Amino acid sequence: MSKINKVVLAYSGGLDTSAIIPWLKENYDCEVVAFVADVGQGEEELIGIEEKAIASGASSCYIADLKEEMVKDYIYPSLKTGAIYEGKYLLGTSMARPIIAKAQVECALEVGADALCHGCTGKGNDQVRFEGAFAALAPQLTVIAPWREWDLRSREALLDYLAERNIPCTASLEKIYSRDANAWHVSTEGGVLENTWNAPNDLCWVWTTDPQQAPDEAETISVLVEKGEVVAVNDEPMTPYNALNYLNQKGAAHGVGRIDIVENRLVGIKSRGCYETPGGTIMMEALRAVEQLVLDKESFEFRQTIGLKASHLIYDGRWFTPLCQSLLAAANTLAQDVTGEVVIQLYKGQATVTQKRSLNSLYSEEFATFGEDDVYDHSHAGGFIRLYSLASRIRALNNQK
Amino acid sequence: MSKINKVVLAYSGGLDTSAIIPWLKENYDCEVVAFVADVGQGEEELIGIEEKAIASGASSCYIADLKEEMVKDYIYPSLKTGAIYEGKYLLGTSMARPIIAKAQVECALEVGADALCHGCTGKGNDQVRFEGAFAALAPQLTVIAPWREWDLRSREALLDYLAERNIPCTASLEKIYSRDANAWHVSTEGGVLENTWNAPNDLCWVWTTDPQQAPDEAETISVLVEKGEVVAVNDEPMTPYNALNYLNQKGAAHGVGRIDIVENRLVGIKSRGCYETPGGTIMMEALRAVEQLVLDKESFEFRQTIGLKASHLIYDGRWFTPLCQSLLAAANTLAQDVTGEVVIQLYKGQATVTQKRSLNSLYSEEFATFGEDDVYDHSHAGGFIRLYSLASRIRALNNQK
Amino acid sequence: MSKINKVVLAYSGGLDTSAIIPWLKENYDCEVVAFVADVGQGEEELIGIEEKAIASGASSCYIADLKEEMVKDYIYPSLKTGAIYEGKYLLGTSMARPIIAKAQVECALEVGADALCHGCTGKGNDQVRFEGAFAALAPQLTVIAPWREWDLRSREALLDYLAERNIPCTASLEKIYSRDANAWHVSTEGGVLENTWNAPNDLCWVWTTDPQQAPDEAETISVLVEKGEVVAVNDEPMTPYNALNYLNQKGAAHGVGRIDIVENRLVGIKSRGCYETPGGTIMMEALRAVEQLVLDKESFEFRQTIGLKASHLIYDGRWFTPLCQSLLAAANTLAQDVTGEVVIQLYKGQATVTQKRSLNSLYSEEFATFGEDDVYDHSHAGGFIRLYSLASRIRALNNQK
Amino acid sequence: MSKINKVVLAYSGGLDTSAIIPWLKENYDCEVVAFVADVGQGEEELIGIEEKAIASGASSCYIADLKEEMVKDYIYPSLKTGAIYEGKYLLGTSMARPIIAKAQVECALEVGADALCHGCTGKGNDQVRFEGAFAALAPQLTVIAPWREWDLRSREALLDYLAERNIPCTASLEKIYSRDANAWHVSTEGGVLENTWNAPNDLCWVWTTDPQQAPDEAETISVLVEKGEVVAVNDEPMTPYNALNYLNQKGAAHGVGRIDIVENRLVGIKSRGCYETPGGTIMMEALRAVEQLVLDKESFEFRQTIGLKASHLIYDGRWFTPLCQSLLAAANTLAQDVTGEVVIQLYKGQATVTQKRSLNSLYSEEFATFGEDDVYDHSHAGGFIRLYSLASRIRALNNQK
Repeated sequence: MSKINKVVLAYSGGLDTSAIIPWLKENYDCEVVAFVADVGQGEEELIGIEEKAIASGASSCYIADLKEEMVKDYIYPSLKTGAIYEGKYLLGTSMARPIIAKAQVECALEVGADALCHGCTGKGNDQVRFEGAFAALAPQLTVIAPWREWDLRSREALLDYLAERNIPCTASLEKIYSRDANAWHVSTEGGVLENTWNAPNDLCWVWTTDPQQAPDEAETISVLVEKGEVVAVNDEPMTPYNALNYLNQKGAAHGVGRIDIVENRLVGIKSRGCYETPGGTIMMEALRAVEQLVLDKESFEFRQTIGLKASHLIYDGRWFTPLCQSLLAAANTLAQDVTGEVVIQLYKGQATVTQKRSLNSLYSEEFATFGEDDVYDHSHAGGFIRLYSLASRIRALNNQK
Repeated sequence: MSKINKVVLAYSGGLDTSAIIPWLKENYDCEVVAFVADVGQGEEELIGIEEKAIASGASSCYIADLKEEMVKDYIYPSLKTGAIYEGKYLLGTSMARPIIAKAQVECALEVGADALCHGCTGKGNDQVRFEGAFAALAPQLTVIAPWREWDLRSREALLDYLAERNIPCTASLEKIYSRDANAWHVSTEGGVLENTWNAPNDLCWVWTTDPQQAPDEAETISVLVEKGEVVAVNDEPMTPYNALNYLNQKGAAHGVGRIDIVENRLVGIKSRGCYETPGGTIMMEALRAVEQLVLDKESFEFRQTIGLKASHLIYDGRWFTPLCQSLLAAANTLAQDVTGEVVIQLYKGQATVTQKRSLNSLYSEEFATFGEDDVYDHSHAGGFIRLYSLASRIRALNNQK
Repeated sequence: MSKINKVVLAYSGGLDTSAIIPWLKENYDCEVVAFVADVGQGEEELIGIEEKAIASGASSCYIADLKEEMVKDYIYPSLKTGAIYEGKYLLGTSMARPIIAKAQVECALEVGADALCHGCTGKGNDQVRFEGAFAALAPQLTVIAPWREWDLRSREALLDYLAERNIPCTASLEKIYSRDANAWHVSTEGGVLENTWNAPNDLCWVWTTDPQQAPDEAETISVLVEKGEVVAVNDEPMTPYNALNYLNQKGAAHGVGRIDIVENRLVGIKSRGCYETPGGTIMMEALRAVEQLVLDKESFEFRQTIGLKASHLIYDGRWFTPLCQSLLAAANTLAQDVTGEVVIQLYKGQATVTQKRSLNSLYSEEFATFGEDDVYDHSHAGGFIRLYSLASRIRALNNQK
Repeated sequence: MSKINKVVLAYSGGLDTSAIIPWLKENYDCEVVAFVADVGQGEEELIGIEEKAIASGASSCYIADLKEEMVKDYIYPSLKTGAIYEGKYLLGTSMARPIIAKAQVECALEVGADALCHGCTGKGNDQVRFEGAFAALAPQLTVIAPWREWDLRSREALLDYLAERNIPCTASLEKIYSRDANAWHVSTEGGVLENTWNAPNDLCWVWTTDPQQAPDEAETISVLVEKGEVVAVNDEPMTPYNALNYLNQKGAAHGVGRIDIVENRLVGIKSRGCYETPGGTIMMEALRAVEQLVLDKESFEFRQTIGLKASHLIYDGRWFTPLCQSLLAAANTLAQDVTGEVVIQLYKGQATVTQKRSLNSLYSEEFATFGEDDVYDHSHAGGFIRLYSLASRIRALNNQK
């Protein structure tokens, strides 16, 4: 492998990536550029981050505001597919990785770096998502994954490593849970959750009110959907990120969007995570409700099939592949009719659609009810059923011979 | 068409099938045998039903207790597939139809009938389900569907029809909602629900407490699952029907299992329904939670694919087809590992799995956590990712040429 | 039903539609406009067709040349999906129906007709395809399907019907086979084929040389594919229809493209057909060969899934549905890389790709062979396999406990 | 890693595994047991193989005759799924690997070995298939893959390695093609095939006559299928292996079963292979033809879906997984009706089914033809079509508002 001169690191300001900066310099004898992606992880995570990066030894620090782009170009297209991993997980971490990796690559090309580095561990999914995106976008760049190289194996070791180098660090020795946050969700792993027979405790949840502590009064909000995208909430037009942000606040207050699952990681092991996706849960319910009105039976089933397939591709870090783009195109085509309005009730952990309407609705009071109408004639059903079950009839007659 | 001598009617004791008895006798000049399937619709529906049938003109009335068989041979196999129609509906009415039709056919063969009759309307799914089963099980028997033949078009007309014949009937002129109940669920359609912009009102719900009126204290229950079937609740071994019944009571008290959807009927129109499936919702959550522990990534995805396909087959009345049997066989094979125990919290409309464990669990605290172990070596991940993303890499290198 | 004033009939010039013209006038007391779609069924079918229509009583006759449009906008998009019905049938009749129906509807709107009519029989697929398209494109127009209305039940009856009205007709009393031709294929049904234990005889085949009589010398042709579409043959750029036509001649001479199958019709019965698709078979082989070079494993599988789904939608007359459009969009996205050149050998019934290349090829001699290279490191495989089979390993270890 | 005492090597008698024996002894200081699987690769490959193994340094050599078991328990179940990889490849190498690995594991457990070894290269699929099976069957045993460990990188190096140790070897320095044979197929890779723009030459084909040199007379054979399995050929009952063998001879004589493809390997690269599967091609055609008669539309489509999924699982070495077993169960359920007889014509590279019949046939001359019958009433079609296209109609009416 040829000499690395300059590496761009996906830098979070946390303990791991703080230690990676000096480690890269010492082990690769190269310049380290810190790249910070603002995907809505919270302002407190970004305050003073540039100074922190420089103090750790980075030659420079770039901060990219990706919030609107992430919701508009990654989350909204994913929502149209209906992707939910293993029936529960709304893919919060998964959807953020490709956009971070893409912006990191762009930074690397701009600063003339010859390598990319991330702080993901060797047992997780994120290493695959980052490196999958790198392979698709900048195969010529070398990838460095310190967690698969170094022999630092604990927070204590990392803190010692920084202390030995006089690099200031505010990280605490004890950190019960491992967390990841962005505009869409916050995830919590580790600690008591590592035993699946332990129920999550109060400390496992970050954003959302405990449903049992949530308001005793339900609250309703209205969501306007256009071609499969949320465009307004409570009659207020909003940008994608703002809509998500607003719904996050509303949902979190009512304890909406908590998920506790054991999932199959891409690398062959299972892990348990608690996820909070308050606004995302509301958005998902809103879209699916409009779909109930406008998608015919076969289209609805295909949308579900797309969602199932897309959930794996997105989870598995396959965003920048022809297959993922093909699925997104299919979902986007179906979404052209998904326009309508829903009213959602938030109450103690639940987001329940109570009202829905759409100009594209295939539901018609006239057709659905008891009486005759121009479109549906009761007598049609007889012929329909006869042909619909004809193969069964022939088979049964055969068997009676 | 040849003369009908004896017809077996799927008789419910309600207004429609009460009118069908004299109508059949008058229009087909035949003997009418009433067949009543006890699928757990409730004792009040069965009290005096034989007398009622005879009073309406039936020559005899057979009552078959199908409760245990339905849960064991229809619901449990369906549950293993994970079938949920259009993402929401737990298929309560759909699963009951094949077993009723099968028992009705058996009755017809026993009494030497030459025709079968049902009281389903001409715009609904049930006519297809009944007649699909009839076609597969007794293609030689004639099927009579009065709702597609007669010109009675309202409750008033039916009441008049009975009054003219001096047939006693306790049915009221006004019936706001159309309902169907069995051990698994109760459905409610019509009335205010016909406008999708109306929220369901209190009268729409039959079994379940309004979540807002449900106990302020959460309740936990434990469910034991063996090879994909619920075998004990709160450490008490129970038959399938008893388990369902017990969970129905627990769930209903906490407002669990309400669904309000617009769905695509098989006959091409959409309809809106409110469904209550308290025990079923809990069973579904329990099974899915054990699956999280024991199914690998590809198996889990296939189980979801099976569930999606099965949801349509079951909804569409395709139970007695080779395809449905094939799907059930596939699901049953996967279910051989689905053994474990879960604890579920019931609270104001929600059933949330908080604890789960299984001897077949592929989750291992040891493997999932940070440290090294014998089974998973961090360095493996590098090779894995490289090959996993190799096609992306080659494609990107191509594009750079 | 309100009075019909003017009906546009899909007119072929054959016996059936010739009889339909007077029948419509007599039974509906309306003006009949004959609409002829030229989809490449052959010039002999079109000669004098206008006169024939007028002689039968049509008020006017419109002929639309749809040949290029059909290949470009219906066949090529279908080819990208890889749709083959039930593993064999290249969908020749199915793909022609939507474009004919669409042009017929356009004609009806132009001439101010209030009804549409077709000559399809009541047991076939085509009635569903026509009426499915009509429902999607012009639901306000009445549809008349004489074969489901009249009581004419044989060629003899039709000939008598015309003779009684002094309408000249050259059709013969005996017609052994039922046929349908367009630019893509010719189909043959009926006669000896009605017994599946009869082998097809020489009279069953129309376009193609018997492979046993085909040239003893193989012939090779080269096909250039761009984004999933055939754009040149033997280095000659050609329009879609011209390319198809040219390949039809080449393929037919070598007996390529014969298929003899029993298929499931949409209406619940099975039928047997012999299909000849010489040019189409060559095009299909060419596209699939380029796909072998450029699609990665997951994309290839999804393309196959799309093809399977699309085969049913196209066969079932679902072209003008959101679902079909969604599938076509997915396939078209994948096809963006499907550019390359193939050489195909034609010999006694077979079209065999012998050479293929593409600038987008993911195949690389360097990567595939034995030695080391920059992109693939043997040692990566160890890690890959370990993680790839990790769930199996954990499960097996569990079972040994 | 703990010390290896005894390793069981999947031994072929070829150059690679001959060198592996001394290499294992030198590098692991362990006893080496040679395990030879007779999967029909040919008697010439087995002659003197025990002596050869001993001469190379093996302590003992076990030969297991797996021919019947392979066809019966691996190939026949696969055939019922219809698995064909990437539309062409009949999975000959893939299906042999699990049975070899299973027998090798059984041998290892019997002789008390603590390790397993195979001679697969580091860029191929077979390493994954072997090690996937090992992980599922004997996760406790260590796996040694010399090709990923040693630095021998050419035939020359291997020959030198053996010569240095005075181990006799008849292998030649030059070997143009890499080959693998078993009862089902022979594969050829390498040499001129490495450039996809080269057509295969005569040397690429081993078993089959060049279609252009095949007999000018076609030959027909009859095949009897019972529940998805070939049970007799030309009216002669045969065991699975004997049937395959017989059909291999018949097919090869007529040049049947040649395939030349570029495929996606599991490890992320593409490779090109020429495969000859004469008997398998005939069996596949026979089964599919009976399916045409007995499977209804939805079952046929599901069988195709199963086949697509199974093709990847089998190719990817996933035989011993719950998912694969689930798919096989689904396919086996559908196969219960697949009983019938077909006549197949062999002619210059093609196997064409010309006649087929089945007692379970859903095809009925009576139903398929023009006239009326008891089962199918033309008028049914009107109602069927109306409901079948109702969603399209409603959508179109909406759009006209």
